[in-house]
Amino acid sequence: MWAAVLATVRASRRILLPLHVRPDGDSVGSSLAVARGLRALGKTASVVSADPLPSNLRFLDPGSECLQPAAIAGDGWDLALLLDCADEGRLGAAAPLLQGVPRTVNIDHHASNSRYAGLNVVDERCAACAELALRLLDDLGCALDPGMATALFAALATDTGSFRYAATSPATLAAAARLRAAGADLDRIQSEIWEHRSLPSLRVLAIALQSLTVDAGGELAWVAVSDADLAAAGADAEATEGLVDYPRTLHGVEVAALFVHEGSGGTRISLRSRTRVDVSVLAARFGGGGHPRAAGCTVTGPPAEARDRVLAAAREALARPGGAGGQAAGDGRP
Amino acid sequence: MWAAVLATVRASRRILLPLHVRPDGDSVGSSLAVARGLRALGKTASVVSADPLPSNLRFLDPGSECLQPAAIAGDGWDLALLLDCADEGRLGAAAPLLQGVPRTVNIDHHASNSRYAGLNVVDERCAACAELALRLLDDLGCALDPGMATALFAALATDTGSFRYAATSPATLAAAARLRAAGADLDRIQSEIWEHRSLPSLRVLAIALQSLTVDAGGELAWVAVSDADLAAAGADAEATEGLVDYPRTLHGVEVAALFVHEGSGGTRISLRSRTRVDVSVLAARFGGGGHPRAAGCTVTGPPAEARDRVLAAAREALARPGGAGGQAAGDGRP
Repeated sequence: MWAAVLATVRASRRILLPLHVRPDGDSVGSSLAVARGLRALGKTASVVSADPLPSNLRFLDPGSECLQPAAIAGDGWDLALLLDCADEGRLGAAAPLLQGVPRTVNIDHHASNSRYAGLNVVDERCAACAELALRLLDDLGCALDPGMATALFAALATDTGSFRYAATSPATLAAAARLRAAGADLDRIQSEIWEHRSLPSLRVLAIALQSLTVDAGGELAWVAVSDADLAAAGADAEATEGLVDYPRTLHGVEVAALFVHEGSGGTRISLRSRTRVDVSVLAARFGGGGHPRAAGCTVTGPPAEARDRVLAAAREALARPGGAGGQAAGDGRP
Repeated sequence: MWAAVLATVRASRRILLPLHVRPDGDSVGSSLAVARGLRALGKTASVVSADPLPSNLRFLDPGSECLQPAAIAGDGWDLALLLDCADEGRLGAAAPLLQGVPRTVNIDHHASNSRYAGLNVVDERCAACAELALRLLDDLGCALDPGMATALFAALATDTGSFRYAATSPATLAAAARLRAAGADLDRIQSEIWEHRSLPSLRVLAIALQSLTVDAGGELAWVAVSDADLAAAGADAEATEGLVDYPRTLHGVEVAALFVHEGSGGTRISLRSRTRVDVSVLAARFGGGGHPRAAGCTVTGPPAEARDRVLAAAREALARPGGAGGQAAGDGRP
């Protein structure tokens, strides 16, 4: 299969690389690095994204080469190369672009990948799709430049929580070592990705921490913010990213929740668990979904009521032996 | 020199490994791993620490083998092997133990190392002393077990801010890859070191963030807590660790400060800078010291007055071309 992928890429001259919706570091870094490599091999390569890049990843795209679907000419593409995209539904507004492309290649590390393309390579042993992107560049004979190395390093680092998650394998770290040797710019990754807090986001964190509540004998912890809080702090919804990690990393906590009261839109709830409770089952009870350790849902109705319903369900799940859904399914990878 | 170190260690039967004061992950992880390796080679090896291990590192010492200086029999030691200890003054209450030991070996990665021992190997290209500890175990022919691998991985990860700092080299990451292959337990490191927040420490963070102030056109940011705040949160001084990183990582900030008002003891101040201002010079103006990017001092007198004096000096340093001390000295390594 890998040989067929290489042959297909080699035979293609005009290659489209669509990102998944709400693109993360692995999607952005892998696709930008491969596009750069393909161009170095004399091909035309365009990265396309239904959503804008998150502000902390924009430095990976200094030439603003990542385009919106509407900016892509609809025909003349030989190949759509999808990296880190577990299913077609994850393409959002970029999905229609695939209609006019004769060949599709899907390279991914999510065990849940639906094998939707003409050629599919899914290796769930990889902590990040960037490991496969690096292998692809190597096997195409493409020399790494510092830009590619920085993009791939950023992809590895973000998808592994900075090489902290257990999915980080010897191969992940060996890939990181190679990328560092090829010029991955850690100062830039540090200042753009890891140390790029905004004053509004710290104001939101301060508000969230004031709401911190621990419950269920220390196994359940949550924080809450409202649209009005965000407005008062001069922040947008991006400022709520990562807030759930504060209750989640409290010693002894099994289930953590973030409640974002969005006014008329209801309450958006992020759920996390540590080892036992399947929060995707919990989220599904409220029409949401996700992974066993990271899930979400939106509940309509008055904020306090929405919160209390979800907290009651979380307490129930904690009280049940084995957690909400019994055996956890899936791999919980970002 | 390295050959002499190996010969000396091989010739020694009873080896003492003193940690530096307020031991960090590199000191603890490197010394515990090497002690474990030396015992596997049939030697007696004891780790000794003037200060207790920080709570998030205690899991590296499940057998509580790390001893207080008073618990060490004063004689009969062939060798004192010092890892990550830049000078003798860093040994604190463990320093007198060295008097009765005929041979001393100093293995370190701090450029500022004073070469105080009989044999000194200082390699400032290493991001952590753990890289040298791994080389030592390798060259002594000691096979890595998962305990050693976990201790050394924890040392690498903590000294590099989870492989984020620019000191992280290809060799650092290659060492991490080997340690992961040898069984380094990332789940344990994750839950004990990175995700081990306490409720009091989050309460203190909430208080600190409420004091967050940005000044000097966005280049200066600070937070403050008092002894009374710590008491109200049920926290001790350890809860103030890392607080300065919140103002430090604000976009656009060059100098960050944490003020801990300690009542009669005065105000303890942690200073950080990003690229330009030498905060060790700033701290020295108040009788303190440190590295160009991380320094500290204690100022007596009323809290508001102490704070204002330091902030005024910081504003001056920011206004001066090139920063407080002109050229930055030292390597800023932890």
